[in-house]
Amino acid sequence: MQETIENQNETSGNQNKISENQNGTSGNQNENFENQNGTFENMKILKSLKYDKNGLIPAIIQDVKTGKVLMFAFMNEESLKLTYETKYTHFWSRSRQKLWKKGETSGHVQKVEEIRVDCDRDAVLILVEQTGGACHTGYESCFYETVTGEVKEEKVFDPNDVY
Amino acid sequence: MQETIENQNETSGNQNKISENQNGTSGNQNENFENQNGTFENMKILKSLKYDKNGLIPAIIQDVKTGKVLMFAFMNEESLKLTYETKYTHFWSRSRQKLWKKGETSGHVQKVEEIRVDCDRDAVLILVEQTGGACHTGYESCFYETVTGEVKEEKVFDPNDVY
Repeated sequence: MQETIENQNETSGNQNKISENQNGTSGNQNENFENQNGTFENMKILKSLKYDKNGLIPAIIQDVKTGKVLMFAFMNEESLKLTYETKYTHFWSRSRQKLWKKGETSGHVQKVEEIRVDCDRDAVLILVEQTGGACHTGYESCFYETVTGEVKEEKVFDPNDVY
Repeated sequence: MQETIENQNETSGNQNKISENQNGTSGNQNENFENQNGTFENMKILKSLKYDKNGLIPAIIQDVKTGKVLMFAFMNEESLKLTYETKYTHFWSRSRQKLWKKGETSGHVQKVEEIRVDCDRDAVLILVEQTGGACHTGYESCFYETVTGEVKEEKVFDPNDVY
């Protein structure tokens, strides 16, 4: 995230080089690397991300077609790796201390189209194709309400039908 | 943020009622409340937000016209209050332990058009009109690069001219 200019220039010299051995944890991973090209570059940037002291990084999920911000959640390294490899978003639940796949209960999965990193490598923006709605309340986006209490969206599904 | 369905329904019964006295900390604040209508509702939602154990809440900044996600940062209650009252974004710098106004050095301020809260009231989405670019590197958005190292934007200013 952007804090102040004084704190911004720490990343570029600090990216670890990744040996080939570290790419080889699963066949699925290798396959996706090949599909996306730039295997080494992918790993270099993924490995350069800064997780907080709890091992988490903020993830903003945006609809690739509408530009709507759908939700916000935290990822740990494992969930980001799964998101990258499977091309479906996975997150880390702090309250349950558990990895979860978005849509595992509802079917409202998020297909990953692109993963962006921010300038100082401590947040990610994930562009997705959303099936159904992102919010458990039935709205497309979790940010359906303004601070003045105005609801800005229509419901796209009935939570009683889904959960 | 959205974690799992089990953790979503804690907010609605938990909003403190705010006495009139609590609205009266500054003349400026009262003025803005009047301008925005729904004084009590505004305070009720603002007061219902869940900050983490460090007193911070994630804030996503989005361009109101283009839908582009410009940056991500944390706010504490004071910076969110200032953002709400002054209609310019303010954040909390964790590294400097200091409140800062976006654009205070560069002039690249963010005029607040709308503040959204998420379904479980632990993240905010702020729609802004961005002057210049949001990123200190010269790009409009801090999320100018993909995880494969592809730069997706043109620079909109030269950082050497600004900082």
